[in-house]
Order: sequence, then structure tokens, then C-alpha cells
Amino acid sequence: MTTPNLLNETHDPKLTSWVSSANIEHSDFPIQNLPFASFKRKGSSEEFRVGVAIGEQIVDLKALHALGLFTDDAQDALAACCKAQLNDFMAMGKRYWSALRLALSQALAQGSSMQADITSCLVAQSDVEYALPCQIGDYTDFYTSIHHATSVGSKFRPDNPLLPNYKWVPIGYHGRASSIEVSGRDFKRPKGQTKAPTATEPSFGPCKRLDYELEVGIFIGKGNDLGAPISIDDADDHVFGVCLFNDWSARDIQGWEYQPLGPFLSKSFASTISPWIVTSEALAPFREQWTREASDPQPLPYLESSHNRALGALNMQLQVLLETAAMRDAKQAPVQLSQSNFKDSYWTIAQMVAHHTVNGCNLRAGDMFGSGTQSGPNPEEAGSLLELSNAGAEPITLPNGETRTFLVDGDCVIMKAWCQKPGAVRIGFGEVNATVLAAD
Amino acid sequence: MTTPNLLNETHDPKLTSWVSSANIEHSDFPIQNLPFASFKRKGSSEEFRVGVAIGEQIVDLKALHALGLFTDDAQDALAACCKAQLNDFMAMGKRYWSALRLALSQALAQGSSMQADITSCLVAQSDVEYALPCQIGDYTDFYTSIHHATSVGSKFRPDNPLLPNYKWVPIGYHGRASSIEVSGRDFKRPKGQTKAPTATEPSFGPCKRLDYELEVGIFIGKGNDLGAPISIDDADDHVFGVCLFNDWSARDIQGWEYQPLGPFLSKSFASTISPWIVTSEALAPFREQWTREASDPQPLPYLESSHNRALGALNMQLQVLLETAAMRDAKQAPVQLSQSNFKDSYWTIAQMVAHHTVNGCNLRAGDMFGSGTQSGPNPEEAGSLLELSNAGAEPITLPNGETRTFLVDGDCVIMKAWCQKPGAVRIGFGEVNATVLAAD
Repeated sequence: MTTPNLLNETHDPKLTSWVSSANIEHSDFPIQNLPFASFKRKGSSEEFRVGVAIGEQIVDLKALHALGLFTDDAQDALAACCKAQLNDFMAMGKRYWSALRLALSQALAQGSSMQADITSCLVAQSDVEYALPCQIGDYTDFYTSIHHATSVGSKFRPDNPLLPNYKWVPIGYHGRASSIEVSGRDFKRPKGQTKAPTATEPSFGPCKRLDYELEVGIFIGKGNDLGAPISIDDADDHVFGVCLFNDWSARDIQGWEYQPLGPFLSKSFASTISPWIVTSEALAPFREQWTREASDPQPLPYLESSHNRALGALNMQLQVLLETAAMRDAKQAPVQLSQSNFKDSYWTIAQMVAHHTVNGCNLRAGDMFGSGTQSGPNPEEAGSLLELSNAGAEPITLPNGETRTFLVDGDCVIMKAWCQKPGAVRIGFGEVNATVLAAD
Repeated sequence: MTTPNLLNETHDPKLTSWVSSANIEHSDFPIQNLPFASFKRKGSSEEFRVGVAIGEQIVDLKALHALGLFTDDAQDALAACCKAQLNDFMAMGKRYWSALRLALSQALAQGSSMQADITSCLVAQSDVEYALPCQIGDYTDFYTSIHHATSVGSKFRPDNPLLPNYKWVPIGYHGRASSIEVSGRDFKRPKGQTKAPTATEPSFGPCKRLDYELEVGIFIGKGNDLGAPISIDDADDHVFGVCLFNDWSARDIQGWEYQPLGPFLSKSFASTISPWIVTSEALAPFREQWTREASDPQPLPYLESSHNRALGALNMQLQVLLETAAMRDAKQAPVQLSQSNFKDSYWTIAQMVAHHTVNGCNLRAGDMFGSGTQSGPNPEEAGSLLELSNAGAEPITLPNGETRTFLVDGDCVIMKAWCQKPGAVRIGFGEVNATVLAAD
């Protein structure tokens, strides 16, 4: 078996752009990235529209379409992007995604004859606000980090932290789509029922154990019909791209409500995604071999493929930062709470797609998966405060002397991500941030 | 405290319609009902559009709007109904729902001067096919029958069937919206991972314990903003109406997958709703006092109101019937498996709305709640085969000699519902049906 080559001229590390800010080292948005978002000028009465990031600029795709510079599939793809959201374009499938990426890459490359025309379609990222990049019909949250599952499980079942199904089933559950918002939308601390272990009755009030969860958001492009599963070999063709995702969690509400049907109000008060969807094609250079330890069960056939073995893992570095109100007042930079890598996930994106649809469930363009909290193998790689503070028993101390078990009002949680490896140009995901406001 | 009078002239039991089939005793759709659906002529290239049932006919609301017979709020409401689905109308709120109901009631009443004009807008129900009445943004499944929860719980925990949170929390979980279809859409038996209790490893194959769940579907009309809970006293204003709902369940897949995050693929292969949404206003005569036994915990304040006490329960009779392939071949009528009543629910619709939003979660027009399986206090009132067959241990025998523990291929499950009481005209919900097809 040979590893399929997913790379093409758009990944060429030698490519640079006539948009000079795209060529700065450590730019999140070099010409090899070209992620999609929905944007408008801040505070304007403009309609939200779809754009592609290049350096510190955005190419307004509606304006670009109007210029009529592109042809064939690329121009058809642009036509589908003349909307407030990406769903129509996402539904077109890989052929059109690739055609538009190639056309954009050529048009934005150093020396392009289109530079003068396209310059008129650029909007500075510093001038815009974002909306959700697509309508999310259904959101499913997976639980793919075995390190997170083990760590959380050990707090409840020290002798048997992992449930017997974990190594066989890519565990997931349906999440709430309506409360997913884009980065920057602050939210009020939720209220709800909680019951302290020693209390005889529950009480009602603001959540006392508010947490973040560091997740990867995965967007479905082309869907499938009800009753027609997507095989693991076809799964890649259905995945449009990836973003950052903070699945805020009310741990005390969760503890009281979640038996027997799973988390509900502990999750549905707010979830926040980064504005930019980095496409599957942009991520191709960072795919890696996926392995399953010989001592672990090997996947059932519907979750197994040579392609998934060869390229199923995604080397995507994840980072959580915290900015407290005190730090903001003192103009101190946010501090890092943890880093982890999505390649340590126990299940791959293709396995999530194949599992989700194996019962016949239909996915639709714009549906989102959460990866589940991505904690790495080491304790300092934990993707939630629940883990970092040992369920609140061991407060963490911040550089300015503040301590945290869970989040306090005014805390802003910031997540960042990037992919880098020798021989490829680093690409970034921008960031997702939101601040906890006091409960009413 | 006096019980608020929710009745008006549209509920008058003396009203009859010039559509004569609406006046037949036991018609599901007398003039006091006036439910909404999305329909088109069977097999035609027409677009789906919104209609209101009257007897055996449907009033095509787009055609009615074009006539310009109505005025003010009622005509504005009709304008919002000139779509394939009801979401825009649902979002308008009670004032417009009521205005349209009153105008339709007057226009369809015996002696109306509009009879000749509106006759041109009628389409026979026997000639049409249905689509989902609205786009369901999010679907939440509750678990409001304490009889079902106790019965199911007793199979796993004989000494402690009800979990400690049940009497405090209206338990619910996020469901899959994409796989909800309208009555008549048959579906393939799902495949998935299961593990027999005695097996050391899971296996993959068609579900062996396929079940139905008898539920009430509840549609949100006017939504709420994220962070702005709906109080229990305001809840009624946000509920557009009710339908029948079969939440098909793969019990063996569920048993293996559901820990710790709840049901997932065991539910998302198919869910089926009846085409007609019976409005909250049509249901007003059948609302009843809601009580909580003194020996049980009384609701926390956010789930308590005098209005909910006075009128929170809904006297809605529910019925499940089965038609096997053999019965169909022999032209035998479907047989009843059970009957139960939604008034036996432990939690009310208003409590579901208040609970769902108390954490700030936003509901949107068209969102649907499932009530959870509605089993009554007596064993023969069980709303699933899991209960009727004692988890498969005690097969039930059908009148033609066939037996069932769970569903076999070719089984058609039919659910019906109606409201009736002395002094009011009976209204019905039509039916929801679908047939289990063999797995691929």
C-alpha cells in the first residue's frame, strides 16, 4: 500500500502572496491556508457575507464573484458563496471546494495578474465582525480523547475509569445547535439545579463549577441520505473543514442532571466556535499515521481502513489561555493553561463520520461535530479545569497570584490552534474567545 | 385564584362547518380543531405548501391568501403561511395564531359568506402527501412519564428503579433533528454495535431489539433569546402546538453505547411525526388540573405556578396499533397494543419549556420537544415493546397468533390520539405510521 498523495500546488511551501501580511512568519493565514468565514464591517448595516482569509485581510467572495474573473467550477463555487453562510458551497462537494481553492491560490499568489482587481475585494480583518460560518443543523459532541475520558472517569470510578465500551465505540451524543455562537459573544453564567453530595435536596442558583472544554469543531460538507451510511473510505469527501470549539460546561448542573440520558442544560447555555473554518484540503500536509496500540482492541471493520491508518490523525496543536478581569485591568497578557494535540485523539474524524452514519443517520451540509475535550497524555495537557484542578480539589495558581478551580465572572477563555511541521508552511486557526458574565 | 378561561367562540361545541365531512361524529378534524400541515398533491411536481385540515379536506393557505378575503392580523398571518413550512408563522406568536384561527373558524362555519370562494382552495386529504410541517432546528427528548421511567429503571435496578433526580428535574436530552421524518416514510432497520451480556466483545449487525416509543411532539412557536429564560407563566405563549411522535429505538444498540453520555445511534436512525400540528389553542378545552402527590417533592419555584397547577395537564388519549406483514396480506385490521393518556405525565409542557430555558438556552420557532414515552400507571398502558414484553422475556401474542418481543421487518406501527370530554367536540390528531424495512 502506498500513502495517497493529498498534496497539490496549493500546498507548495514556496508560494507567497501579493497580500504581504500573508507572508509574515507565524501568520495564521498564509496563502497555503485560505479558510472561510462569514463577516461584515463592524457595526455596519451590511449583510453578513462569506470571505476567505489571507494574511490580515479578507477576500469578499461576493465582490469577487461580481468581478467574473474565475471560470467554470471555481466561478460556480463562488456563486454558491454569495450568501450569508457557507451551507450551499459546503454541499457542493470536494470538486468545487478544490476548484475554488486552486483559483484563489493562483489569484492571490505573488505575480498574479488579478492583483489589481482583487485588491478592491479586500477588507481588513481588524475592521470586521463575524457570524456563524454556516447554519448548523445538528451538532454532535464526541468524546474522542481517551486521556480526557480516563481522567474524568477516574474521579468517579478510581478502579475502573474507562467504561467497557470506550475502546470499541466512538462515544458521542447529540448536542444543542441553537446555542452555538461565534467567538466574541460573551454569555451569562447559567443557572440551574444542583445538588451537593451531602445535601438531601437540590437547590437552584448560578452554576458554581463553570468550565471550558478545549475541542476541535468538524464541519460536514456534503451530506448523506437517511439510510445510506458513509463508509470510512468515503468519509474524507464529506468533511469540509475544521475550527476551534469551546464547549462550555456547568459541571455541577451536569453532575445532578445527567443520569440516565446524558448532559443537557449543563451544555446548552453556550458553545463558542472560532470564525474561520480551515478546510480539509488545507490540512492535508498535517495528516499523519494513525495507530491503535496492539494491546487495545482493533477497530471493528466499519471503523477500519488502510487510508485511515495511513492518514487518519491530524497534527493540530491546541492551546488554552485565560485572561482574568484583573489581568485585563492590569493590561497583562493572557496566560496559557494548557496545550495538547489533536493527533492524540483515540478516534479519527473519518471514524466519527463512519460511526455516526452506520445506523443510517443522515448528515447535512453545515452539521458540526465536536471532537470532545482534547486532553493529551500528560496531566498538564488537560483540556478542562475539571482536570487541571482535580475536580476543584487542587486550585491552580496563575502568574499574577490569582487562583482558579473553576471559572469566575469576567474570565475570558481564549483558544488557539495551529498546524506546523518541517517542510510545510505553518497554518493557524485564529482564535475562539468569550467572557463569562455574571448571572442575572 | 380563578382558573383563566382559555376558551373563545372557536371552541363553541355548537359550531359546524359547510365542509360536511367535518361534522361527522368522530372526525379528527371538526371545525373546532383546524390543525396545520405541509402538503402537496401526491406525486405531483407542486411545491409543498401549508394547509389547515377541515373534515376530509385541506384549506390551501397560499390559495386562500391570494383571494384576499381576510384582513389585518389574519391576512398577515396567512402571508406568513405562503411557504413550504410553518416556521415564519410559528414565530409570529399567539396574537397572529389566534387571529388566523378565528378568521378560519368564521370562514369555514356553516353559513359563511366565503363558502363559494374558499371551496376553490380545498384539496382532498386522500389526494395529498405530506412533508415536515416545519424546519426542526433542534429536537429535545424529555422523559416525562414516571411510569415509563420506573418500568424501564426496574429492569436495570429492581431495588431502586427511579434515579434520585427524577422527581426534581424534568429529565431531557438533545436528540437528532435531521432524521425526523413525516408519517409514512418507511425506514431500514438500523445496524450497529451491540454486545450481549455474556459476550466478551461487541459485534456488528442489524439491530435485534427494535422498538417504538409512543410520544407527544411539542412545537415551539415564538422563541427566546440566548440568556433570556422563559418563565413558567410565559411558557404557554411559546408553544405553537402538538403532534404524535414515534421515537423509534434500537434497544440493543442503546444498551451498549449509552454510558456515559446518553442515547445516540440507538435513536438517530429514524423518528416519525404525524403530519398535523394541533394548535395549543385548539387544545384549550382539554387542559386539566395538574397535581403533584403530597408525598412527592413539590417543584422548585421556577417549575411552579398557579396557572400550571390549574391547567398544566393535557387530557390527550394516545393509542398504539400494530399491523404486521401477515395481517396486511390477510387484510386484517391493525391491532391495538396499548392506550395511555398524556395527562398522566409527571411534568407538564410549561415545565418542560421553563426547565429547558432556565439556563439561558434559546428555543427557536419550529424546535420540537418529545414528551418521552408515555406509559400510563397500569402495565397494559405501556408505550413501548420493551415494557409490554418485559424486555423481551415475555412475548406478547397478537390476535392472529403471531408473537412479538420486538419489531420484525414488515411491521407497521400506527399511533393515534384524540381529545374528548363531555361538553366539548372531540378533536383528533390523525395518525403517525411507518413500516420497518429489512436492513441492507
